[in-house]
Amino acid sequence: MSHNSFGSLFRFTTWGESHGPAIGCVIDGCPPLIALSETDIQPWLDRRKPGQSRFVTQRRESDAVRILSGVFEGKTTGTPISLMIENEDQRSKDYSENRDKFRPGHADFTYWAKYGIRDHRGGGRSSARETASRVAAGAVARKVIEQVTGKAADIRGALVQIGSQAIDRGRWDWAEVDRNPFFSPDAAVIERWSSQLDGLRKAGSSAGAIVEVVAKGMPAGLGAPIYGKLDADLASAMMSINAVKGVEIGAGFAAAALAGETNGDEMRMKDGRVEFKSNHAGGILGGISTGQDIVVRFAVKPTSSILIARETVTASGDEAEIATKGRHDPCVGIRAVPVGEAMLAIVLADHLLRHRAQMGSRPA
Amino acid sequence: MSHNSFGSLFRFTTWGESHGPAIGCVIDGCPPLIALSETDIQPWLDRRKPGQSRFVTQRRESDAVRILSGVFEGKTTGTPISLMIENEDQRSKDYSENRDKFRPGHADFTYWAKYGIRDHRGGGRSSARETASRVAAGAVARKVIEQVTGKAADIRGALVQIGSQAIDRGRWDWAEVDRNPFFSPDAAVIERWSSQLDGLRKAGSSAGAIVEVVAKGMPAGLGAPIYGKLDADLASAMMSINAVKGVEIGAGFAAAALAGETNGDEMRMKDGRVEFKSNHAGGILGGISTGQDIVVRFAVKPTSSILIARETVTASGDEAEIATKGRHDPCVGIRAVPVGEAMLAIVLADHLLRHRAQMGSRPA
Amino acid sequence: MSHNSFGSLFRFTTWGESHGPAIGCVIDGCPPLIALSETDIQPWLDRRKPGQSRFVTQRRESDAVRILSGVFEGKTTGTPISLMIENEDQRSKDYSENRDKFRPGHADFTYWAKYGIRDHRGGGRSSARETASRVAAGAVARKVIEQVTGKAADIRGALVQIGSQAIDRGRWDWAEVDRNPFFSPDAAVIERWSSQLDGLRKAGSSAGAIVEVVAKGMPAGLGAPIYGKLDADLASAMMSINAVKGVEIGAGFAAAALAGETNGDEMRMKDGRVEFKSNHAGGILGGISTGQDIVVRFAVKPTSSILIARETVTASGDEAEIATKGRHDPCVGIRAVPVGEAMLAIVLADHLLRHRAQMGSRPA
Amino acid sequence: MSHNSFGSLFRFTTWGESHGPAIGCVIDGCPPLIALSETDIQPWLDRRKPGQSRFVTQRRESDAVRILSGVFEGKTTGTPISLMIENEDQRSKDYSENRDKFRPGHADFTYWAKYGIRDHRGGGRSSARETASRVAAGAVARKVIEQVTGKAADIRGALVQIGSQAIDRGRWDWAEVDRNPFFSPDAAVIERWSSQLDGLRKAGSSAGAIVEVVAKGMPAGLGAPIYGKLDADLASAMMSINAVKGVEIGAGFAAAALAGETNGDEMRMKDGRVEFKSNHAGGILGGISTGQDIVVRFAVKPTSSILIARETVTASGDEAEIATKGRHDPCVGIRAVPVGEAMLAIVLADHLLRHRAQMGSRPA
Repeated sequence: MSHNSFGSLFRFTTWGESHGPAIGCVIDGCPPLIALSETDIQPWLDRRKPGQSRFVTQRRESDAVRILSGVFEGKTTGTPISLMIENEDQRSKDYSENRDKFRPGHADFTYWAKYGIRDHRGGGRSSARETASRVAAGAVARKVIEQVTGKAADIRGALVQIGSQAIDRGRWDWAEVDRNPFFSPDAAVIERWSSQLDGLRKAGSSAGAIVEVVAKGMPAGLGAPIYGKLDADLASAMMSINAVKGVEIGAGFAAAALAGETNGDEMRMKDGRVEFKSNHAGGILGGISTGQDIVVRFAVKPTSSILIARETVTASGDEAEIATKGRHDPCVGIRAVPVGEAMLAIVLADHLLRHRAQMGSRPA
Repeated sequence: MSHNSFGSLFRFTTWGESHGPAIGCVIDGCPPLIALSETDIQPWLDRRKPGQSRFVTQRRESDAVRILSGVFEGKTTGTPISLMIENEDQRSKDYSENRDKFRPGHADFTYWAKYGIRDHRGGGRSSARETASRVAAGAVARKVIEQVTGKAADIRGALVQIGSQAIDRGRWDWAEVDRNPFFSPDAAVIERWSSQLDGLRKAGSSAGAIVEVVAKGMPAGLGAPIYGKLDADLASAMMSINAVKGVEIGAGFAAAALAGETNGDEMRMKDGRVEFKSNHAGGILGGISTGQDIVVRFAVKPTSSILIARETVTASGDEAEIATKGRHDPCVGIRAVPVGEAMLAIVLADHLLRHRAQMGSRPA
Repeated sequence: MSHNSFGSLFRFTTWGESHGPAIGCVIDGCPPLIALSETDIQPWLDRRKPGQSRFVTQRRESDAVRILSGVFEGKTTGTPISLMIENEDQRSKDYSENRDKFRPGHADFTYWAKYGIRDHRGGGRSSARETASRVAAGAVARKVIEQVTGKAADIRGALVQIGSQAIDRGRWDWAEVDRNPFFSPDAAVIERWSSQLDGLRKAGSSAGAIVEVVAKGMPAGLGAPIYGKLDADLASAMMSINAVKGVEIGAGFAAAALAGETNGDEMRMKDGRVEFKSNHAGGILGGISTGQDIVVRFAVKPTSSILIARETVTASGDEAEIATKGRHDPCVGIRAVPVGEAMLAIVLADHLLRHRAQMGSRPA
Repeated sequence: MSHNSFGSLFRFTTWGESHGPAIGCVIDGCPPLIALSETDIQPWLDRRKPGQSRFVTQRRESDAVRILSGVFEGKTTGTPISLMIENEDQRSKDYSENRDKFRPGHADFTYWAKYGIRDHRGGGRSSARETASRVAAGAVARKVIEQVTGKAADIRGALVQIGSQAIDRGRWDWAEVDRNPFFSPDAAVIERWSSQLDGLRKAGSSAGAIVEVVAKGMPAGLGAPIYGKLDADLASAMMSINAVKGVEIGAGFAAAALAGETNGDEMRMKDGRVEFKSNHAGGILGGISTGQDIVVRFAVKPTSSILIARETVTASGDEAEIATKGRHDPCVGIRAVPVGEAMLAIVLADHLLRHRAQMGSRPA
């Protein structure tokens, strides 16, 4: 049991605080002989990096990753891969004013209630800065998926809702995702989202979001029932991301309102393979992948650090008001997209290894 | 790593198939000196038992649990508690007709794709019959919570939606839950749900549902960030229940549409304790409990075993039609209520033990 | 984390007390499609069974194992295999006289110190009866090894010392092991051992022993450094057997007295394969198998239940004398042989699965 | 499951190679509010540091440890503690000559057989340099023991045999251990050991050793039967140390030759507490501590890197000769003493946490 580790066979352990000297992770169980260097990891970190548009935090971090172990002459050796990212922009003083106040919606109160101590600088361990380690581990997971399946991992994410404004799924275009600062697959929504967020920023408020991540081309057979179900692990993976309050697979909550004959995806044969006529299951049945797209959606609550003053209490039990200055994402859901992708890659890499442990080969 | 185990310190491992001789579980890590007998467990199993109304499966099982180890002279000894429930009503022949066909919406295809073999009798291992073991373990978890916190576990569940018909939350009455066959907290919805399900049963169709489970009176401080967050473990726990497609905490998916100043729950002092003015967080911030009600909701898809004929394929790759006869729940969500309660109790018992391992005392 | 589980991917959990209704185990992670029935397991249990000679306990147990799950139509399905053995000869009254006294050398005192409660009937959970579950799991592990390596598991054990009388290793004959009641590979020692044990039995005393277990034909490459080293797992496996006080690999403790140039096993090529000129390493270097025989030895202390009166104390803190009547092994080391074999098989099966998880194929 | 992690609740994960940029570890599960800084860790690393006498390797490393996370304002926060030690003296060229040859007694062949790749510089991951991370984690474990038990950890180790020359246990003096370069508790043996090792060094050979580590003042009740037995975990802990080939508890292998009435430690009452009249058990019965001294001994094989030329093979399958130049310990057993102490501290810290998880208080 390890509070700060995730995964069974492809397993990583993260460490570090928002305003400490560095953050990082140790990846254990990675297969050997995978070509790996910092240049395989950095582009994914860059996608998540702060400061890339006016809609995300202006904290300045190069997020440069360094491989400290586990790679020899450009290849993984099968031993632990230690990754480190130094923190550069640590304006701790931003936080000193509010150091004794519990920010509403934040983990300030609960860390204090649990541990009796907390690193108050930028949330310390509870900061979303920790997710950079996940993105780094996710980049390695993609390489594992490629080695095991024999083809590049096809794992992508998109933002499908900001505040109450959802995209039009009929206009879904994966190519669009990389062309706008929101990871939106729908070009038509961008202007609305921009003005909504500009308005919120001016008002000192913030917005929530819904993220969808999809893995294509994964084989049927991944998942380890009953308590290592693929969807159970995905639920845990996504819910562990900062500010996430809900996770769903395929039709998700909407499945409750479907009739049985609508929801169950029918099967036909095509070119000697089973083909489903729909994908309400989101690619998972009984906790095992069907071979269809694996579709996971998660809800991100609005950023809790806002300029609007709110009622709170202090560590010494006094009532107080708080307005969070600092540098914050008006919608943390945006930068959650690469994090969700990373977690999906990590879960899949893990289950590919779990599968071949028990079955002796990769799924067909 | 264990596919069929759940929990870290309060840990249980389940075994058994729908139509094998028995099912059961082994609970490991239970504290000693807890008074425990079959009579502490049986009432919870009886709540989940099939055949209690026309709205659930008519399979006849007494679900009588037997304690085989770990209890001496009426008290737990700290050693593994082995629980066994014999299967009684095993009409395997119900399944022989469709043994080679993959039932849409079921795990038939995926078990076969993964393992190359499956016990086709009633779903075998993938059957919801496995959840009886969870309910039994959950009964023990309640006793652990009582021993550790010094007060009876207050963990309850209710059905808040069948098909597209939701309850009126304004009429929520916990006392009502035990008075109707749906675990509905809203008396006014019962007639509508009854006629809806009667209609679906006649049509050979089925309905999905949404379940809400709540733990009251739990201390602040439970949860082990980052990857042992209380909400992440709850998400995994609930998503591992058969037919569940989504999980949310507190405001859940609706949080995406809230403004930051609405979502973050403000704090005041009352009688020397922190009190929150709202509970959008569902009692969890940063993966740690706040001391408020812990509120989890999950979506159950409509029963996949339906009389309406559907298109499918066979293990030998032929296209076929299938209509599932047997005895099935028109809405599996109903019997998922006690299962969700059990999983909530199990997660909380586990985190109470995890907490005192690291912190040396139970949370205040 | 699970106190009563062993193994990572081939993992079993045992339950049950010496004088409860039954004992058993749940095996998780077993690959599917392995032919398995009770007749594959029973012969191994019979080797360990009490009452087979005057040198072991006279407790009468048929030790009949029953498979309750995980096997369908004669083959493993990849789901948990639940095995149960009913206790038949439970003369609890043998123990009532001494129920409050702590037997020297036994776990009576420590279970009481830890849990504040203990099942005093025959040691309860601390009884060596638990090892029957290990032997049953070991039988399944042998089948896994056979499936993964493509040849029958060649894992055998022998008794190499009783009291201070060691065998002559020059006379080692594996065929002899099954011809005498001691699992001795040296026919010449049997008469001496018999008269030694007869003398001890008459005197109401007991003897210790040393067991050696060997796996032949295992591939190079098994083991998962640093903390999943093959020898570290074997050390844990053997030390967990009742009454074991020491474990060594290959030359073991004697290696301390060897010169570097003697101890390090030199290598040559033979028929295109690496061949070692000696095996001081016991088949393991750096925690990974070399392809040579894997050789493990463990020391078993003398049976603590003896007729000779000894000084002790009671649970209420009074001083007392105790002489254990009941039915006991004058040398528990004898029946530890099949248990050691089983644990060796279990560790190897687990590491074969761990290896192919990370490496994608079985070792060459 | 994690190959490079050790412990359940006090858990550490190590990373790094002998000649990479750095080594380190991440400690997870440490209780909060423990005063901790580098100065608490450094002295223990200094005890293990190379180059302190002519009897150990002359590699020059300051082994300066740096805390990267988990400590805030001088106290642990309950979050992961990341420790890093930079490698300074990396004369990789020492190894280039033999890069394709497998050094007898080393893990060169097995890493290559397993992974198909190895970092040949100084053993890479299989180097004993990894043990510095253990010593650092052990220093933290000592602080945990102190916090939980309320008194300083009393854990010490000594060398009891080099080659075939054992100490005289009658002259055991703990104070002597810190006065000689061998950690010998017997002043009279030092001259003999010195001349023995000087002779071996000149001859280009090496010697093995036996180490004994002892924990005093630990409470009764530590250990988690059946597969988390305290002695089983200690066996795994010690066997995982580089070059260790055997582990024993208390009387150990010698127990095999004792009569039952000699081996079982009798009990009396003294000042209201149970007192044992002897300690053949080494402080552990049934896998649980008795409250006596916990005594563990382990055998270290002679250093495999020696100047004497030996027969071997190369990665390409050619036969070759090899003599290892570099800088090596003539007796690696010496520097294994602080490593054994650290592993003992780590196992005990872990079991103190495991105990209070299940039992709710520290053992009495």
